[in-house]
Amino acid sequence: MIAGYQQRCQARVDAALEPLFHAPRTDLQPLYAAMRYSVFNGGKRIRPLLVYAACEALEGQPQQADAAACAVELIHAYSLVHDDLPAMDDDDLRRGQPTTHKAFDEATAILAGDALQSLAFEVLADPQLNAHEAETRLAMLGSLSRAAGPAGMVGGQAIDLGAVGKQLDQQALEQMHRHKTGALIEASVVLGALASGKADPVSLKALQRYAAAIGLAFQVQDDILDVESDTATLGKRQGADIARDKPTYPALLGMPAAKAYALELCEQALHALRPLGSSAEALRDLARFIVQRRS
Amino acid sequence: MIAGYQQRCQARVDAALEPLFHAPRTDLQPLYAAMRYSVFNGGKRIRPLLVYAACEALEGQPQQADAAACAVELIHAYSLVHDDLPAMDDDDLRRGQPTTHKAFDEATAILAGDALQSLAFEVLADPQLNAHEAETRLAMLGSLSRAAGPAGMVGGQAIDLGAVGKQLDQQALEQMHRHKTGALIEASVVLGALASGKADPVSLKALQRYAAAIGLAFQVQDDILDVESDTATLGKRQGADIARDKPTYPALLGMPAAKAYALELCEQALHALRPLGSSAEALRDLARFIVQRRS
Repeated sequence: MIAGYQQRCQARVDAALEPLFHAPRTDLQPLYAAMRYSVFNGGKRIRPLLVYAACEALEGQPQQADAAACAVELIHAYSLVHDDLPAMDDDDLRRGQPTTHKAFDEATAILAGDALQSLAFEVLADPQLNAHEAETRLAMLGSLSRAAGPAGMVGGQAIDLGAVGKQLDQQALEQMHRHKTGALIEASVVLGALASGKADPVSLKALQRYAAAIGLAFQVQDDILDVESDTATLGKRQGADIARDKPTYPALLGMPAAKAYALELCEQALHALRPLGSSAEALRDLARFIVQRRS
Repeated sequence: MIAGYQQRCQARVDAALEPLFHAPRTDLQPLYAAMRYSVFNGGKRIRPLLVYAACEALEGQPQQADAAACAVELIHAYSLVHDDLPAMDDDDLRRGQPTTHKAFDEATAILAGDALQSLAFEVLADPQLNAHEAETRLAMLGSLSRAAGPAGMVGGQAIDLGAVGKQLDQQALEQMHRHKTGALIEASVVLGALASGKADPVSLKALQRYAAAIGLAFQVQDDILDVESDTATLGKRQGADIARDKPTYPALLGMPAAKAYALELCEQALHALRPLGSSAEALRDLARFIVQRRS
């Protein structure tokens, strides 16, 4: 069920993203090609799906959420490009394809990431692309810039970097993930809610609790898959986290407890959605999918 | 005269920037320290000066322009951090100090640059820091994101990267500079004008023409100084552009014609400001300063 929904969201956000990558001048073609390559790489579009599903949960229409869906995916794509760089995780493969600095070169990958970040904010600020009233666009811009920045996603990457080879306890590991992946996942549901035009404090709070739970669940499941899946299914090197001596949930809790924790977080997510009715069904499906996925 | 004005602008924007670099958590301190280091490195704050001077030219007050001044400087600072990376220009010195990836490490420099970019947009979106009506803040966000992104500054860096070792004609060189440095300089005067609350189409047009001329003048003078100044005065390696076989104005036009061109651009800038009265005097002083500076 979620597979069909995911495909529809993917097709929808891809159609909205595509026109953003036409180079306005010939000499800009290499940069735009690298940006396009970084965004159209078979990504699961989970953050856009969250935007659309959160918008739907508050009875908004998908077309109201297109710009927000593009913006969160552009931020996500830029973070992957920079994360894969030799000075960072030094990954050659991403979803089975050469990473951007391998397909192009390192300088182009740095610039493509930088440009994707600017573009995310440009899309949200643009009244043609993001046809909401000024206050709504500003709330989206505020939420996404905070989530992407030093107190959000980039902060999480910095904490992660400082944690390699260290013994983290569960609390420290969770703080890292709340920044590194949780902040953008939360921003995705907030932007979706804002896009609906019907965000009230109670449903916003419910959606944020949901996002916090699935964000962690996603990470726990990622750590489990890094141990249990194989490179072909995963599209990246299996065992990469272990090889790097990164702290993971299976290493910290043991595999059975890590799996139980993923399921518990899924339950927390479903519980958070209780104030919302049947319109939140896609969000519920996604929570279940996250802890069941194999790649 | 401009020196005193510059010092006042520098003190003003530095005071507004400083509170942005307090880490909200202990484990984020290294990232915030790298961001602070990258921003407080003895920079001339020419873009903030342009913001304040453009605001003043339209009879706005400096405090209206603080957030815009911070935002353009944050974008400028991030671009320098990434530009200095080994995969890019591979510079060890910036204004006589170790570049960010030398003072910290490469991964931290990449992340600090990324975080500074997010922070620029966060500052503009924040109603506490940027106390303008929603439409004004959005116009600032739109202008700065376009100027920073693939069709602006980052695009210019990509063109620059592709041009090393190539014979560019004057038109191609100018296109590169209009993107690489011109776009952010133009955004600085536009944001300053918007901050005044009194931007009308005629004065905006005048300011944009002014910005285009001083942007190029700045670049021509930079190329001249790269040949004529010494490393100690310049704070970076003298002759660095020539060593890299980068196209420069003195190489293209010869030194006497390059100097004449810088002066001509200064005249164009002054001419563009004719619709504006005595309130634009700081902008006029700056145009003269740009072609007279020795570092």
